[in-house]
Amino acid sequence: MVETIEYQPNRSELGHTIGGRTPVLRIHPGTGLRVACEDCFGGRVRTTDDLPSQVCDPHRLNPVSGPFHIVGAEPGDTLAVHIVAIEPTRDWGVSATYPAFGALTGTHQTPNLQTPLEERVWVYEVDRDGETVRFQDTNGRYRVDLPLEPMIGTIGVAPSGGEVRTSVVPDAHGGNLDSPQVRACTTVYLPVNTDGALLALGDVHARQGDGELCGVAVEIAAHVTVVVDLVKGVAIPGPRLETDTHLMSVGCARPLEDAYRISQHDLVRWAAELTGLDTLDVYQLVSQAGTAHVGNVCDPNYTMIAAIDKTHLAGAVAFGGIHQRLRGLADAVR
Amino acid sequence: MVETIEYQPNRSELGHTIGGRTPVLRIHPGTGLRVACEDCFGGRVRTTDDLPSQVCDPHRLNPVSGPFHIVGAEPGDTLAVHIVAIEPTRDWGVSATYPAFGALTGTHQTPNLQTPLEERVWVYEVDRDGETVRFQDTNGRYRVDLPLEPMIGTIGVAPSGGEVRTSVVPDAHGGNLDSPQVRACTTVYLPVNTDGALLALGDVHARQGDGELCGVAVEIAAHVTVVVDLVKGVAIPGPRLETDTHLMSVGCARPLEDAYRISQHDLVRWAAELTGLDTLDVYQLVSQAGTAHVGNVCDPNYTMIAAIDKTHLAGAVAFGGIHQRLRGLADAVR
Amino acid sequence: MVETIEYQPNRSELGHTIGGRTPVLRIHPGTGLRVACEDCFGGRVRTTDDLPSQVCDPHRLNPVSGPFHIVGAEPGDTLAVHIVAIEPTRDWGVSATYPAFGALTGTHQTPNLQTPLEERVWVYEVDRDGETVRFQDTNGRYRVDLPLEPMIGTIGVAPSGGEVRTSVVPDAHGGNLDSPQVRACTTVYLPVNTDGALLALGDVHARQGDGELCGVAVEIAAHVTVVVDLVKGVAIPGPRLETDTHLMSVGCARPLEDAYRISQHDLVRWAAELTGLDTLDVYQLVSQAGTAHVGNVCDPNYTMIAAIDKTHLAGAVAFGGIHQRLRGLADAVR
Amino acid sequence: MVETIEYQPNRSELGHTIGGRTPVLRIHPGTGLRVACEDCFGGRVRTTDDLPSQVCDPHRLNPVSGPFHIVGAEPGDTLAVHIVAIEPTRDWGVSATYPAFGALTGTHQTPNLQTPLEERVWVYEVDRDGETVRFQDTNGRYRVDLPLEPMIGTIGVAPSGGEVRTSVVPDAHGGNLDSPQVRACTTVYLPVNTDGALLALGDVHARQGDGELCGVAVEIAAHVTVVVDLVKGVAIPGPRLETDTHLMSVGCARPLEDAYRISQHDLVRWAAELTGLDTLDVYQLVSQAGTAHVGNVCDPNYTMIAAIDKTHLAGAVAFGGIHQRLRGLADAVR
Repeated sequence: MVETIEYQPNRSELGHTIGGRTPVLRIHPGTGLRVACEDCFGGRVRTTDDLPSQVCDPHRLNPVSGPFHIVGAEPGDTLAVHIVAIEPTRDWGVSATYPAFGALTGTHQTPNLQTPLEERVWVYEVDRDGETVRFQDTNGRYRVDLPLEPMIGTIGVAPSGGEVRTSVVPDAHGGNLDSPQVRACTTVYLPVNTDGALLALGDVHARQGDGELCGVAVEIAAHVTVVVDLVKGVAIPGPRLETDTHLMSVGCARPLEDAYRISQHDLVRWAAELTGLDTLDVYQLVSQAGTAHVGNVCDPNYTMIAAIDKTHLAGAVAFGGIHQRLRGLADAVR
Repeated sequence: MVETIEYQPNRSELGHTIGGRTPVLRIHPGTGLRVACEDCFGGRVRTTDDLPSQVCDPHRLNPVSGPFHIVGAEPGDTLAVHIVAIEPTRDWGVSATYPAFGALTGTHQTPNLQTPLEERVWVYEVDRDGETVRFQDTNGRYRVDLPLEPMIGTIGVAPSGGEVRTSVVPDAHGGNLDSPQVRACTTVYLPVNTDGALLALGDVHARQGDGELCGVAVEIAAHVTVVVDLVKGVAIPGPRLETDTHLMSVGCARPLEDAYRISQHDLVRWAAELTGLDTLDVYQLVSQAGTAHVGNVCDPNYTMIAAIDKTHLAGAVAFGGIHQRLRGLADAVR
Repeated sequence: MVETIEYQPNRSELGHTIGGRTPVLRIHPGTGLRVACEDCFGGRVRTTDDLPSQVCDPHRLNPVSGPFHIVGAEPGDTLAVHIVAIEPTRDWGVSATYPAFGALTGTHQTPNLQTPLEERVWVYEVDRDGETVRFQDTNGRYRVDLPLEPMIGTIGVAPSGGEVRTSVVPDAHGGNLDSPQVRACTTVYLPVNTDGALLALGDVHARQGDGELCGVAVEIAAHVTVVVDLVKGVAIPGPRLETDTHLMSVGCARPLEDAYRISQHDLVRWAAELTGLDTLDVYQLVSQAGTAHVGNVCDPNYTMIAAIDKTHLAGAVAFGGIHQRLRGLADAVR
Repeated sequence: MVETIEYQPNRSELGHTIGGRTPVLRIHPGTGLRVACEDCFGGRVRTTDDLPSQVCDPHRLNPVSGPFHIVGAEPGDTLAVHIVAIEPTRDWGVSATYPAFGALTGTHQTPNLQTPLEERVWVYEVDRDGETVRFQDTNGRYRVDLPLEPMIGTIGVAPSGGEVRTSVVPDAHGGNLDSPQVRACTTVYLPVNTDGALLALGDVHARQGDGELCGVAVEIAAHVTVVVDLVKGVAIPGPRLETDTHLMSVGCARPLEDAYRISQHDLVRWAAELTGLDTLDVYQLVSQAGTAHVGNVCDPNYTMIAAIDKTHLAGAVAFGGIHQRLRGLADAVR
């Protein structure tokens, strides 16, 4: 049986940075952790009248729970966070157009002189039993049910070099990856940059389209259950993911082709290391067998994910098979 | 019964531009067309000793068959090309690292001062019955079978404004889209810019990974069967695709986020027009329900595709249901 | 004495592509040529009531005079066009915000869902004697005189590979460079891609800011006097410029860093070739002594220019001293 | 007479982040400050044998002196730092190719699979009296003197939102701007994000080319003399500069066109505010009269600067004329 720690933050314990905060808990590798996470608006946007720019402090968006000190984690290690379950807390979620945010509007990084897009809120019904979320248009004329596919928007560790980053930014430390691949049954690997790693997470989505087009997903509060473990003495350059079938590398950058390059480059290097094949051969294999997934095209860094089916990699086993082991533990945690 | 015209070009009839050439055939809307297409190397790369830069003329890469004059096509119309079948001609395909081409090397557009990457060729066995392609590493130590998933790399019409573009470039006229979505059972919509549209196609791939990472897919010669039709008096800003389940918009641009923006923007506008919903509502819906697909991240313009399930669009029917009609005809052509 | 040919096109002789047209004149190397050029709106925008989108055909913007067949020019040569003089034809110029064009608004390549920016025209007085252009704000409350600094916006030759490009695009063949460095006393070098080179030029600006921010400079008609010459058997990868003091390489691409990379990369290669210094040493020298100039950040490709003072290059002489020779001829032409 | 405080850090007092550190001094507005700054390698690279990757800790590059607590500075204020003098400390400077850094090589953000560029060091003689720096090629065959034009590479204040950034990054808080415009007689305006502002600076360059092409300028230790002042209750979105003749806005972003957009957008907004002119009119005026300057095209964010001559802005006076006032004080400090 795996010990599982419950963590429910007070509002004052929520953080808005990755790094730079005192740990709220110490967690031993191999431990389960069930964390309550607020939505990206801190729960303040509940109706179509609650415009985010009016009800939220712009410096206090995207709250994260944590950080959790992982006992024994040291720089140069890799943190493995296996996601066991993501359970929506409420029967609703929200989305919005937020000022100067999103891929089809001017932003602080791509400014223009046009009149800003209207700020508007959409409230979705979340049917946890039926596993759907219901979109409704502004006039209430049109409704459609979309699959409930919960995912963690923000998960990361303290950055390297003593940096502290807002929780809105994704980068080599993880953070606001906003990628649908970060879901239950996936193991997230993060580079440990500081003693204790300082894991933080939040910003759960009931679902999102690829790229998080308008900048805001179907935002929900949720309980997230993970099992945490360490790969000692193995360093990675940025986030990686593993599922039962795939290995994935995450790239965070602008322009978007650089996020593509980083993710594919890391996957080629990783696969070459795991298989012992020549790097150019792996470059070729990934060119034909690899897939590319768009996380976000709206955050301060964009996110893309490179993936390959493990059966194409000559039976390669990553990180000593830790994913498979954590998958087993997950049943004990659930 | 649908008339089907066979077209087998002589080598001298192959083109290397989209636009700027005399039609090889006149095709009436509603006609089937079975076209022989050479591979992107003009069939000159057959063994690992045939380095493309040595056996190919750099200005004569990526040959296309055509152009086909579509009778009655006028500027402001939309050409519908329904792909019935893509049949590999040979039992092998090739890929390569080509000098100054690919996403993980310096190129003419992203030059650097490092030593160029080694040029190398890989030959794949294509098993048409087993529907696989076999990767083999350079030393012959490792083999793996990947699914045979044939697709058309290059399909387009004469550009607007009297332009003539090399067949290597994708843009609003189509061209070298290099996207796995351009496969059998898909209808490709292209904007007609000139009388007769001047359809050309080629560069078939046995398969490719997302982004065509190294710049070269599993390149094959093939017979491509299409049914061609016209949507009179309806103009589109760039290529669109339709399958039995999805509507898709194609964006071609650099940087990659602009290809994303163009494709998603067109999908939002198109879906708003089809459903009558408010544009911001569709922006929201696509943000949660839409997907994004990476075509190429190596050509002079990159390609991305925005897609949405038609069931999420209130029963919207595109272009008067032409896709469904062509799907029916396809059975008669096959 | 240098022979100087006058060329005054009829309206119907103006072109809107680079390449793809029959030469209007044959010019021998060493000849002077005085060409009348219309402004980018074909002279149709004359008052603040003449909105370009209403008075112009969008496919007939940016007319160019030519093409001129340069006798003896063959692929693999370099065309040298020394600019002797740029004389404004009228005492006014115009600028505008044009729909979906400019760096601080949504465009076809960077689309958004905001309301488009207002289309508006500004008319400038051009004082040819005083060498100023007068800006006046919309309400007529504020006026300021700016220096008259005439430059050629569009100058290019037929592209390689049989391409024909709209005159709005800059690329390796030159075209719509929109760079203030293309002014009198400068020699423009262009790669010859086809017999006769097919030089075309137009789109003169009374002046522009760096990047042509709103997408439209102070647009004027002008007489442009050049002396044309050939460097036989010397190929260049893209446009280069030479003044009495500087060597410059031009890069055209998106994103803007790729235009920077292309221009700086070519300058490093060129300077290494001219000086015989090691490439890394020249990379270092250009890193400290080179300058970078922003041409346009609004056209389908952006333009940047890398420059270095010739005195920093060990007395290097480019193209056998052709610039200095043409400078001498210029006095005879004027 | 202006009080001038001298500050000479111990090596252990040097910082490698902007924000996140305890102030080393409290400075009152109106005070002069003469700060000793180490070079970007911490003085460890002194000969061509001292390869940076071998003699430096990669997490301890680009040291900054400070931070200085500016008494009375509060969020929402603007900090004005007038640069009085930049005096090189030594008679030499160094540059280098550094692994995975620079515009013409693969980097962590734009990775490739090619062999890395050779790491190499160049040592420059700095002639403080003759005001030159001497480049010498690797083989000692070629020497050339370039103007000594000292500039501050890194100057910034604690970022907003509790962020701490490595000193290698430029952004809205300033930081590693690497722009030649940050030189003596310029006033740098920075947004105050936290009590005391926490000014830090370092990374002085004897000179650099536009874009800092290879990623490393002519790096020197120096004494930097500034006068610090506050504009209370006036917030700015990012760094701005003022000289006797020009107003400038700084943009930091990737891709490079976004740095251009941010800088030009801020200059348009700022000039509209100062002149009371309509925004579109100012957009037009800056389009014709503005200049764009390339800071760096190698750091995690690129830097561009938009500038306009103050005489073109109807006698506009920025920040109540603080630049002119500090210029006067500078004479008293020197």
